[in-house]
Amino acid sequence: MTTTSVMRAEIAEQPAALRATLDALLPLTDDIAALGRETRQVLFIARGSSDNAAVYGGYLLQAHSGRLATLASPSIATTYGARIDLSDVLAVAISQSGKTEEIVDTMRWAADCGARTVAVTNGEGSPLAESADVALVTRAGTELAVPATKTYTTQLAALAVLALGLGAGLDRGELLGAPDAIEAALAQSDDRLDAIVDRLVGVQGAVVSGRGMAFSTALEAALKLKEACYLHAMGLSYADLLHGPIAVVDSGTPAILVAANNGPTLPGTVALAERVAAAGAPVYAIGGGDALADACDLSVPAPDVPEWLAPINLIVPAQILTEKLARRLGYDPDAPRGLGKVTQTS
Amino acid sequence: MTTTSVMRAEIAEQPAALRATLDALLPLTDDIAALGRETRQVLFIARGSSDNAAVYGGYLLQAHSGRLATLASPSIATTYGARIDLSDVLAVAISQSGKTEEIVDTMRWAADCGARTVAVTNGEGSPLAESADVALVTRAGTELAVPATKTYTTQLAALAVLALGLGAGLDRGELLGAPDAIEAALAQSDDRLDAIVDRLVGVQGAVVSGRGMAFSTALEAALKLKEACYLHAMGLSYADLLHGPIAVVDSGTPAILVAANNGPTLPGTVALAERVAAAGAPVYAIGGGDALADACDLSVPAPDVPEWLAPINLIVPAQILTEKLARRLGYDPDAPRGLGKVTQTS
Repeated sequence: MTTTSVMRAEIAEQPAALRATLDALLPLTDDIAALGRETRQVLFIARGSSDNAAVYGGYLLQAHSGRLATLASPSIATTYGARIDLSDVLAVAISQSGKTEEIVDTMRWAADCGARTVAVTNGEGSPLAESADVALVTRAGTELAVPATKTYTTQLAALAVLALGLGAGLDRGELLGAPDAIEAALAQSDDRLDAIVDRLVGVQGAVVSGRGMAFSTALEAALKLKEACYLHAMGLSYADLLHGPIAVVDSGTPAILVAANNGPTLPGTVALAERVAAAGAPVYAIGGGDALADACDLSVPAPDVPEWLAPINLIVPAQILTEKLARRLGYDPDAPRGLGKVTQTS
Repeated sequence: MTTTSVMRAEIAEQPAALRATLDALLPLTDDIAALGRETRQVLFIARGSSDNAAVYGGYLLQAHSGRLATLASPSIATTYGARIDLSDVLAVAISQSGKTEEIVDTMRWAADCGARTVAVTNGEGSPLAESADVALVTRAGTELAVPATKTYTTQLAALAVLALGLGAGLDRGELLGAPDAIEAALAQSDDRLDAIVDRLVGVQGAVVSGRGMAFSTALEAALKLKEACYLHAMGLSYADLLHGPIAVVDSGTPAILVAANNGPTLPGTVALAERVAAAGAPVYAIGGGDALADACDLSVPAPDVPEWLAPINLIVPAQILTEKLARRLGYDPDAPRGLGKVTQTS
């Protein structure tokens, strides 16, 4: 068993990757604004980690820019070959490689249906970047580990830039502080994460939940745990969890809850922690301040940032947790079974 | 341990519930068409099983009516209190009780934001039905078991009526055959399902997957298995499965694949079955004809119906499987732990 991994090194590169990405993309807000004036709503096209980034983009735009922003079903384009009226739509396609054919084809289909297009990709010169009206090319550098880390957080930063360009009432200066927040998250001792790793060894399944902006983090944390630790991790929103799946939590099925340290979704997340604990399940917190920590068995604190930026650093402890748990279980976090770096679906 | 359950009785009531629902709702297509002329796209508002019905509605409308149809994030309304431009939007709120405050509040918010509204509910006279421009009240009768069965399939029928009203190029006569198809599914011997139940005893987690129209069935089957059998069942689309979670399938984590007997998503589902089997995981089929059955270890056939109607009967074997597995495991399928019949989220 190795004692470190490429994944862990790439996790540590995130502050620099974010700074480079913001430097490159913030000058593009005027181009984004021009597309925004030609459209009324946003439709995200993505899969996997990129789809989790899209969930963040959806909440960000809807809560702060007054635009409807929802997720496309790519198979409507690629499998059903349907024609849909997409005039007034800004189609935002997200793919770290920019090469996944399903995503490239769906973005081109959207354009044929009347949409304007934005690409969010780490693949400079990729088919996705070349085909879009505006390309937001993240500057994560080459990512070698299969589980996306720095390509994911730079996607979130690109979506924050998109929101600014589309007129969201948010503070550009706060966004510039995001790399420092990740640095603060990385500087924390691993002791609290190690304690959670200890409890997750031998666990078969877990529920990962969050609400609003942090729902994206819950989905992404669950995906990381599935792909690198083969854990049956179910990423669920607070509300969806209560509509059925709450039944699965028990003493052997912990819940991991994610929340910003402030904002309108925190009280509901604390209440969920209390409900899960009352059901006899272990419950662990990432973020959520003292209120959430007090309601959970173990917790990892998050830096204080505005709620709209919290997902950019809240995922970092989950990335480290995944990397540590994978190695503890004897797996190679860099190369999970059955997965390659560019996923082709059609 | 009881040898039967209310859930099983309600599963058997579905042909009659569907017939009554179609009789009541098909005369409303003109009212739906009038709303359709005032709007350009559909936004679904739902949670839990109703959200899985909305996934079906989204594929149905997008593949066949030329309208964009996506899912809302209710917390944008209820937690963030955002204002979004929803002129041109037909908001379709789905709730079996019609009393879930989050759904009622979100539909009213959508109307305040400029949307026209449709309610799909089994709750005649409920706040949801009373608040909508057009109410599609399903005729499932009282449902006592907590896991939704007949209220779910009648929601699907209501969404098929919605699609017809919105001008989808689909055959009303085919829809009238849906109750007979459920009857055929119910008339099958339980032997094949019993063989799958035998294999699922002792299993901790499973992946349930499907594509396009059948994705809704995969999500609903996974929800049933989570809520009544406490199985870590992950409902995933074919494409999302390949973007990471495919890593979790192994000899102890079977896949259950769902597909119509025909249509454009079948070849991809067969290919997925082969890939899962190659990864060493057991794989079981619901529907998909001989092509899918041949690629799987065990299978349950489905009646031959047009692909757009397949989800209405494909869920039936999964309902029976859930009820049988719950009883085999010593659980009461009618009253899972932690759940009530009307879920309140806010």
